Amino acid sequence: MAGKLPGEFDLIARYFAPLAADMPGALGLEDDACTYAPMPGLDLVLTVDALVEGIHFLPDDPADLVARKLLRVNLSDLAAKGAKPVGYLMTTAFTPETDEAWVAAFARGLAADQQEFDIGLLGGDTVATPGPLSLTLTALGTVPAGKALRRNGACAGDVVLVSGTIGDGALGLKVLRQDFPGLASADRDFLGHRYRLPRPRVELGQALLESGLVHAMMDVSDGLVADLGHIASASHVAAVLHAFTVPLSAAASGLLADDPTLLPLLLGGGDDYELLLTAPPAAVPALVALAREVGIPLTAIGEISAGEGVRVLDRDGESLDMAIGGFRHF
Amino acid sequence: MAGKLPGEFDLIARYFAPLAADMPGALGLEDDACTYAPMPGLDLVLTVDALVEGIHFLPDDPADLVARKLLRVNLSDLAAKGAKPVGYLMTTAFTPETDEAWVAAFARGLAADQQEFDIGLLGGDTVATPGPLSLTLTALGTVPAGKALRRNGACAGDVVLVSGTIGDGALGLKVLRQDFPGLASADRDFLGHRYRLPRPRVELGQALLESGLVHAMMDVSDGLVADLGHIASASHVAAVLHAFTVPLSAAASGLLADDPTLLPLLLGGGDDYELLLTAPPAAVPALVALAREVGIPLTAIGEISAGEGVRVLDRDGESLDMAIGGFRHF
Repeated sequence: MAGKLPGEFDLIARYFAPLAADMPGALGLEDDACTYAPMPGLDLVLTVDALVEGIHFLPDDPADLVARKLLRVNLSDLAAKGAKPVGYLMTTAFTPETDEAWVAAFARGLAADQQEFDIGLLGGDTVATPGPLSLTLTALGTVPAGKALRRNGACAGDVVLVSGTIGDGALGLKVLRQDFPGLASADRDFLGHRYRLPRPRVELGQALLESGLVHAMMDVSDGLVADLGHIASASHVAAVLHAFTVPLSAAASGLLADDPTLLPLLLGGGDDYELLLTAPPAAVPALVALAREVGIPLTAIGEISAGEGVRVLDRDGESLDMAIGGFRHF
Repeated sequence: MAGKLPGEFDLIARYFAPLAADMPGALGLEDDACTYAPMPGLDLVLTVDALVEGIHFLPDDPADLVARKLLRVNLSDLAAKGAKPVGYLMTTAFTPETDEAWVAAFARGLAADQQEFDIGLLGGDTVATPGPLSLTLTALGTVPAGKALRRNGACAGDVVLVSGTIGDGALGLKVLRQDFPGLASADRDFLGHRYRLPRPRVELGQALLESGLVHAMMDVSDGLVADLGHIASASHVAAVLHAFTVPLSAAASGLLADDPTLLPLLLGGGDDYELLLTAPPAAVPALVALAREVGIPLTAIGEISAGEGVRVLDRDGESLDMAIGGFRHF
């Protein structure tokens, strides 16, 4: 044994096997593989996302929130497909500095979100690394066969809609880094929480798929402008974004009123995990009503036309130059 | 852009999207998720394994062989379930030192094995890390519904069998670290190759499942003795291993004859990626014949009885004390 942790098998038995207890296909994590069979008429949807300490989370972030963010960024990818989450496989690369209290809190975070999203652990791999601590999660969900929503279905004439509010995640990261020292503590807490614990729009995603009205959908993780660019490019169309219509939280609105130069950060910062979609204009009232039933606002923020690229317009119809593109890993 | 690599999207388009070209469910890697539907009557089998530079491979290992080992350790887990491989999702965490030539060679290795094993890339995530380079792969396969082979089916009276030869991987790692300076170069090459490019027993695994004669199966990755211990413990039985019956390659036999103290390394070193299974004595001739048809030897090496634990016996029936247990990550 190296480092501060119990052996691999003890660690799995103590912290991870309980997370797999309700998943028969996990085989008690005893085997090196798991099984799963979607019901007839369903397609499986799979997605994988990794978090690296120092890049995607900070060394002193609470382990339970790191766990929940790891799960939630993947659940957000499932939500964007309209999928119902099923379970997940996870690889943890712990460092010599990782202690058992960290792993215990990490497992507690997973357990909380398993209950919240009705999913379970299916399998995984536990390895050692000299550092940084790295976490990779593969999430499984299901959609009606052939119905998974995609980025590439946007059509000229479509309206662009987005769920929830935009920019809170990017502001939250700045708050956690001690920016905005004058900000009220309720706003600090709200924004920091939005960064650390995104709310994947799982229920809304499924409702949007079931409506049959959505042409293209994805989740906003790289930044609203960059991700709208992904839809435009995959669909071979152009998009216009009306910056002043983008829905903002009260905390974000307040900060933007004080400092209008924050706009590119709000529209480009990423880590929003809201749903971005396009649909024909006639479908918009029904979609907004459907989202209201789920309890999440859905706001029209732009249009799709023939052409390519994304233009961001201000209130006067003038093009805004976005100083910050979406977050890029390299 | 940081480091020596092109941007994330260029990297995916240039090196990874071609690997997904034959997989419709990969959606061209354009979306953040992929879809897959097993044929009716099949269960999906999923497994995940990670390789960390400096722990599981060496910084100067050829990138194409690292890629193929990453795939093959996962394919070996599928083989142990009797599964037919379908495809994989992959997370790559590249460092500031990773250059484009490394990624190009890595992708070539994946392409070679995709052809060899008739699989394709379904999806993934590409992130940056300060290091070490880390790779995580989730492999998908299928088995007839409810038929996945497991570790926990061994019964008292069963014979223990193993495919291929044992110990080459552990010796190969020592060869690559410049041990055994007097070894003939053909043997050096053979053993080094066995470590760097294991041969997952994919075809044999499926044939063994189809035979309906196997009680328990797993692949040998932690070491023969430790993995037999996993079968014994999962099945609540005891196992005896007759050390002198364990099949060895000519290279391994020669080294063991020169230095009998290598035995614990051969039986405990791991990285064999052979299949370890138990079956009733009456089934052994049929299983050996079936393996011969696939072109891989299958050798009886022990027995299962009531009780617990693993005893390793020498030619005189005396217990051997295994100085080296299986490889443990912590």
